[in-house]
Amino acid sequence: MTADMILPRGFRSAGLACGIKENKSTFDLSLFVSDEPCVGAGVFTKNQVCGAPVKVSRERVPGDSVRAVIINSGNANACTGERGIEDARWMTSEVAQGLGFENEEVLVCSTGIIGHFLPRTPIEQGIPAVIGQLGADASSFLNAARGMMTTDTVPKQAMRELTVDGTSVRVSGVAKGAAMIAPNMATMLSVIMTDAPLSASQADALLREAVDFSFNCVSVEGHTSTSDTVILLANGASEADPLSADDLVQLQAAIMEVAMELGQAIIRDAEGADHFITIEVSGASTQAEAKEIARTIANDALVKTAIAGSDPNWGRIVSATGRTSVKLTEADIVLHLNGTLIYEKGMPAEFDEEAVSASIRDNRDVSIQLQLPFGSESIVFWTSDLTQEYVRLNSEYTT
Amino acid sequence: MTADMILPRGFRSAGLACGIKENKSTFDLSLFVSDEPCVGAGVFTKNQVCGAPVKVSRERVPGDSVRAVIINSGNANACTGERGIEDARWMTSEVAQGLGFENEEVLVCSTGIIGHFLPRTPIEQGIPAVIGQLGADASSFLNAARGMMTTDTVPKQAMRELTVDGTSVRVSGVAKGAAMIAPNMATMLSVIMTDAPLSASQADALLREAVDFSFNCVSVEGHTSTSDTVILLANGASEADPLSADDLVQLQAAIMEVAMELGQAIIRDAEGADHFITIEVSGASTQAEAKEIARTIANDALVKTAIAGSDPNWGRIVSATGRTSVKLTEADIVLHLNGTLIYEKGMPAEFDEEAVSASIRDNRDVSIQLQLPFGSESIVFWTSDLTQEYVRLNSEYTT
Repeated sequence: MTADMILPRGFRSAGLACGIKENKSTFDLSLFVSDEPCVGAGVFTKNQVCGAPVKVSRERVPGDSVRAVIINSGNANACTGERGIEDARWMTSEVAQGLGFENEEVLVCSTGIIGHFLPRTPIEQGIPAVIGQLGADASSFLNAARGMMTTDTVPKQAMRELTVDGTSVRVSGVAKGAAMIAPNMATMLSVIMTDAPLSASQADALLREAVDFSFNCVSVEGHTSTSDTVILLANGASEADPLSADDLVQLQAAIMEVAMELGQAIIRDAEGADHFITIEVSGASTQAEAKEIARTIANDALVKTAIAGSDPNWGRIVSATGRTSVKLTEADIVLHLNGTLIYEKGMPAEFDEEAVSASIRDNRDVSIQLQLPFGSESIVFWTSDLTQEYVRLNSEYTT
Repeated sequence: MTADMILPRGFRSAGLACGIKENKSTFDLSLFVSDEPCVGAGVFTKNQVCGAPVKVSRERVPGDSVRAVIINSGNANACTGERGIEDARWMTSEVAQGLGFENEEVLVCSTGIIGHFLPRTPIEQGIPAVIGQLGADASSFLNAARGMMTTDTVPKQAMRELTVDGTSVRVSGVAKGAAMIAPNMATMLSVIMTDAPLSASQADALLREAVDFSFNCVSVEGHTSTSDTVILLANGASEADPLSADDLVQLQAAIMEVAMELGQAIIRDAEGADHFITIEVSGASTQAEAKEIARTIANDALVKTAIAGSDPNWGRIVSATGRTSVKLTEADIVLHLNGTLIYEKGMPAEFDEEAVSASIRDNRDVSIQLQLPFGSESIVFWTSDLTQEYVRLNSEYTT
């Protein structure tokens, strides 16, 4: 995989184990650096209880003088009061000092357990070490993807290359975790980098649009973490000239694809999950309504346990749809499960329950398609099933 | 238990097995009858996808000429189109015919699997049989509580007696199921009877108030079923005169207590649950805000798995609070778990984690108390934990 990695120019990254986590050989520190000041945009958790790093980073984007993102795993630095804010600022100043940047040019993310003060000693030693390992190669990039992992089983990265006026433009991204599925209260973090030339407001708009259709369309159990953060860095290191409107559309598509690939990778790696579920809601009046229905189905414990049990229990899906705020009746719903029509306009369809059950049991991917008659808006949403293993993982952890 | 039952005068009830369920000896049909036309009020599911019996009963209350409530378990008669409506009406007409009532004087509830047509044959034979067994004694009342059970392990009933101007007034209630925790898409159903003299509008108001603080304050996984129904019957068979405002307050308290006892009994019998969790939110600006916070905590998979694992993981509770729409920050929250202060105003409190963990592990009841500084509104809410057994029960069922 590393051989195929075509990374955006002008960025370096690194990751290593500095000793925040109990297992001292597990990576827990990552650094992303742009060789020149670059544009940075961020989308942060909507949870009103948010981590100190969210508060610090949020003040520093969007902007056009971002140099680095420092990330630790193993400790979320959330619900840690004023001391937490000071710790987050201190992390950025350690990086700034090591690299000759201004403090305000460094962004910070933390993921891990809530309510414990950040351990400064390992980080103080880790930051010069991670600076020393910065590289533009694929293995440095993968190390950085590893340093942000909590209960993830694999590092998550995605790349795209496009051609703008005959010039190559690249987008890469890394991500970790899935909402709050992790025993330690993990978090969804992602850093996306591009060597395209973007203004801060362009980067902000592109990122928000991409997040809306990617990370905001995945959910494991509907719990928005205190520390969710997605950052876009654009350093203009490609030779592309200022982008035309058409170029921007192309770049938007590439950023969206990277974000969607990362979002889906998070769900595919969801703790204890047996199925990767794609929910498509179409024919809605507004996209917000389509998303509300998809999200309600995605977070429904009864739908998720039915899928875990290979049960084509459409009643749970139709009932979940009915409990949203979208005005509808059961006669408005047409439902396909793994391509088979199972419910149509208020009445069960005749279908081979055994065959549909087998198609769930024998495949990791499950497709739920719900059609409405109201309009032309649609959404695609991703989730995982709810298994006994999920409960075991999330209850057997004891502080 | 049956010896202590002091039931409202002028009601008879019965329950039996008519053969709707696979196990032909399991009770699946219940009937409640008032000797004289009585006042009836109902509160029904807010799910827009609702069962045919909900549609039929909703048209017939509130009113002052209700005679009976017929209930079957084993089939929800939901998502069954026009034929389902006809079947629900037919059930009421069979009862009306057998007892000499008008069709419109009979209410109907069904609970069980969604999307299957009601089997008329066993019900056609069962209705005359259940009419034949009607009795005013405690064992008939308990049989009726049994006939509405789906995956409940125990019948649920509650009683109160109060004195109004020297005259005894009685309230009794039965309930089944807990939201949609059941594999077959079960439902919360309850019938509450009183021999107090009430007008239809009084009954309606008393019932809505009682439901708001009882059944609307319990949740297993946040899935509002298609068929939830609570019915209040008031037949005036006690010798109490028209009630004064003070009497109404007393009666309201009795009805509320019966409803709360039944709501709590449902949660105590929640499938696969190890803990009964009481969530108290106080110091809110409005009751709606207190309830939103309590409900969000109650339905949070991460809070529920933490309790299952005896983990005093307050971060999950604080984070769940932050993702509600109630305007707050982490500094506004004070949290007690089983009476121990564990989080105060943005910072973790020092507490003995081992001791709090042991207090969860060694007791079935868990108390979460969340204080806010905004006002004087509060709510008490009940839920269960999320265990591997819950997932097994809800995923191993296969249609």
